[in-house]
Amino acid sequence: MKYFNDLADFSNEEIQALITLAARLDTNPEPEALRGKVLSLLFLSPSLRTLASFQAAMTRLGGGSFVISPEMSIHGIESRPGIVMDGAAAEHIREAIPVIASYGDAIGIRAFAERKNIDADMQENEFTSLTDLIDTPYINMESAMNHPCQSLADWKTLDDLNVPANGGKFVLSWAYHPRALPLAVPAATLHMAAKRGMDVTVLRPEGFELPQALMQKAISAAEAAGGSVTETDQRSEAMQGAHIIYAKSWSSTHHYGNKINDQKLREQHLDWCVDEPWFANAKDDCRFMHCLPVRRGVVVADEILDGPRSVVIAEARNRMLAQMAVLHQMLGGAS
Amino acid sequence: MKYFNDLADFSNEEIQALITLAARLDTNPEPEALRGKVLSLLFLSPSLRTLASFQAAMTRLGGGSFVISPEMSIHGIESRPGIVMDGAAAEHIREAIPVIASYGDAIGIRAFAERKNIDADMQENEFTSLTDLIDTPYINMESAMNHPCQSLADWKTLDDLNVPANGGKFVLSWAYHPRALPLAVPAATLHMAAKRGMDVTVLRPEGFELPQALMQKAISAAEAAGGSVTETDQRSEAMQGAHIIYAKSWSSTHHYGNKINDQKLREQHLDWCVDEPWFANAKDDCRFMHCLPVRRGVVVADEILDGPRSVVIAEARNRMLAQMAVLHQMLGGAS
Amino acid sequence: MKYFNDLADFSNEEIQALITLAARLDTNPEPEALRGKVLSLLFLSPSLRTLASFQAAMTRLGGGSFVISPEMSIHGIESRPGIVMDGAAAEHIREAIPVIASYGDAIGIRAFAERKNIDADMQENEFTSLTDLIDTPYINMESAMNHPCQSLADWKTLDDLNVPANGGKFVLSWAYHPRALPLAVPAATLHMAAKRGMDVTVLRPEGFELPQALMQKAISAAEAAGGSVTETDQRSEAMQGAHIIYAKSWSSTHHYGNKINDQKLREQHLDWCVDEPWFANAKDDCRFMHCLPVRRGVVVADEILDGPRSVVIAEARNRMLAQMAVLHQMLGGAS
Repeated sequence: MKYFNDLADFSNEEIQALITLAARLDTNPEPEALRGKVLSLLFLSPSLRTLASFQAAMTRLGGGSFVISPEMSIHGIESRPGIVMDGAAAEHIREAIPVIASYGDAIGIRAFAERKNIDADMQENEFTSLTDLIDTPYINMESAMNHPCQSLADWKTLDDLNVPANGGKFVLSWAYHPRALPLAVPAATLHMAAKRGMDVTVLRPEGFELPQALMQKAISAAEAAGGSVTETDQRSEAMQGAHIIYAKSWSSTHHYGNKINDQKLREQHLDWCVDEPWFANAKDDCRFMHCLPVRRGVVVADEILDGPRSVVIAEARNRMLAQMAVLHQMLGGAS
Repeated sequence: MKYFNDLADFSNEEIQALITLAARLDTNPEPEALRGKVLSLLFLSPSLRTLASFQAAMTRLGGGSFVISPEMSIHGIESRPGIVMDGAAAEHIREAIPVIASYGDAIGIRAFAERKNIDADMQENEFTSLTDLIDTPYINMESAMNHPCQSLADWKTLDDLNVPANGGKFVLSWAYHPRALPLAVPAATLHMAAKRGMDVTVLRPEGFELPQALMQKAISAAEAAGGSVTETDQRSEAMQGAHIIYAKSWSSTHHYGNKINDQKLREQHLDWCVDEPWFANAKDDCRFMHCLPVRRGVVVADEILDGPRSVVIAEARNRMLAQMAVLHQMLGGAS
Repeated sequence: MKYFNDLADFSNEEIQALITLAARLDTNPEPEALRGKVLSLLFLSPSLRTLASFQAAMTRLGGGSFVISPEMSIHGIESRPGIVMDGAAAEHIREAIPVIASYGDAIGIRAFAERKNIDADMQENEFTSLTDLIDTPYINMESAMNHPCQSLADWKTLDDLNVPANGGKFVLSWAYHPRALPLAVPAATLHMAAKRGMDVTVLRPEGFELPQALMQKAISAAEAAGGSVTETDQRSEAMQGAHIIYAKSWSSTHHYGNKINDQKLREQHLDWCVDEPWFANAKDDCRFMHCLPVRRGVVVADEILDGPRSVVIAEARNRMLAQMAVLHQMLGGAS
């Protein structure tokens, strides 16, 4: 495995093999698998789970990592091509990225969407501008429109819960949040559930439709796997018989990059906070998923997070295990 | 060992076994003992020695660690129960702590006293609110009123110096400092010396008495071990025949949480700076201890820190060794 | 090896042995060589390559490291002797440095020049004030006037490129930069190329002459190795037949510590930006070297950095390999 950039690059069998490996590494540790191997970790966007879980993953496999982030060492890094660097920035990504990559056997890169222009973000212009600079194996630790590590972990969580693939009903629901957040997690989650073969419903208010290209990618994945993708703004209809509700806030795609109009629209939907009444016609044991961090009392009620429906901590722990499997395959641990 | 939270949880024999193990790991390294094991390090309060010594300890035992601190990744973490999180904080401790803990085989947590209400701090309300959220083995890296890693290291330092347990005279002295500092180190040090069976004198000006519950805990520990605990504001009386003076500044307990009144009181005691005349009637080889960091010329004179009485660097190095012993026992290194 | 502070402390044979070891560790990893060994990394000045490459180096050899920097844990550390510490600083280097060193088997220290007084900087007053406090083996990770890790890496890069030692022509050229930068890299580079036996030309405008003591040290090294050292402000004369141009900006030595006068002078030389015309009478395959970070369009044109002349990424990767060799010798890896 040279890149781990998008679940779509892997067959369902390959994904199942990664999940099986992740589970095996949990019960049968391999602290010699990656001895002396180094993972470079470049955080151009902030992180808690990703920062911690990748470092822990490398240690558990006998290797190590180092972290570079703008707060630490690369203030004002320049990314514009052809620029005369007579301002604040002392280094250009064209040097920084290859150098950081050269110290590792692989590199993880996190760079959120710019959220100015949806087409630029859909084309992953920024992330691609970074990975184009290197030959090293790399891992997408969240880009403008993808978060494959989260999705692999979530797939494992669904397996751990014995949620059926074909016939399983998965609701991806928008939720209120005071800020306009990136589309990476909803985009990756929608595709993951569809690729797993589930019947996926995107539940969102008008103005928060996901981009057509993302919907189409998910529909194709669902068709290949025996699932389906629909969307609605009707909560009760969406939740009917649901095995899973995966909540996440995201930007309005009607007002992408326009904070003021986005905010006006989202503030009409303060009631999109997942609480027990949402589950009225769901499966009795319908579970609540979220990638974290999550705002209590805003995105989801305490009663859900603190009750038996929530599997958010298990999801977060599966981040580490899923990444251990990816690193094990990528860096050549004996299998 | 599931928790390392308070020396009082361990018998003197158990403590001696840890110190023996610490010394053995110093001379006979075990770089395979904890291979592939991970220590999560959560610093809600700043650190130098603790930050460095825990990372070094895990590496020396063949494992690794990762560090999470507010400066890095968890700006404005929320801790109030039942809050609607529509402000700056993006994550609640109820998610953050279990997730961080889930990536490690054990977690170290540092959270200083709030220093608003002495009863809340004496009850360790904040630290307990964190450890109540997890099942993972944990280590107290300094809480409101405890610092067991410092105390275990200091006990080892006393052993290294051949200071007698029964019959050894230990002076814990308040010293001037421009800021109102936490009670954690004096509380832990008082109890440690008493539990070791020493004759302990708390030397402090009026207004800086340690809380009665701490005094009583120390008196009980001393009685069980054949030692004693007294307090005085008379320097010469306290230092008579002393083997050790352990200096530390702390808040006025009369004006706890009231910075202005605390400052008025402490500024009457600018002369509480340990210098050579303090040792006039102490043992000839009476040693100076301090947990560091220490303000030169304020808490203690250069002549003491730079002279043969000071053992502060040895104390700090024993932090690493003591923690290696704790980690070795906690994480199941072969013994 | 107890210290790695200056290439001048080592014979050319010792340096070649380190470079041979560096190359061997690249092709034949030794992930057990330094198992359980710890490198303390103290950054009193900022870093990207040094920060990343030392951490990666220790991991590749089976050990580990920890990082201490002012941003993290040691705000306002005091260094003045005899000071009464009643201000902001809570810790003095006389405690901090020995403690940090005590947790490692060796310590790397980075402390840039103060750039107030050139004599103080030439005498390495600050760096020496730190290393005088410790007995631990140490590595100079850049001091006021030296950067031996960069020089060892650069020497290896020259070997990798088959640039001749005797008879090879090396141009160290000043370049424009909006800020007055330290002399450490030009000082170390000049000496390295001279010690390698090359014919070295220092190309710089008037006012940017390197200090006489540095020139004399290089001349002595060149004489011993069969090389030469000259200086000029004539670009075409300097570049005649050059195998290598190593560009770097540095402070005016005429106006050292005087930012305003330095700036007036350097702004007369905005045209000192290395581009293809500089190479008119150089060897056809003359290469461009720089320690990074480098400002594009200011120090060097994009056409050079993005073209076949540039070896800056290889130089940066050699930092890690050179440091692995130093650490392997210093910390007793089996050879």
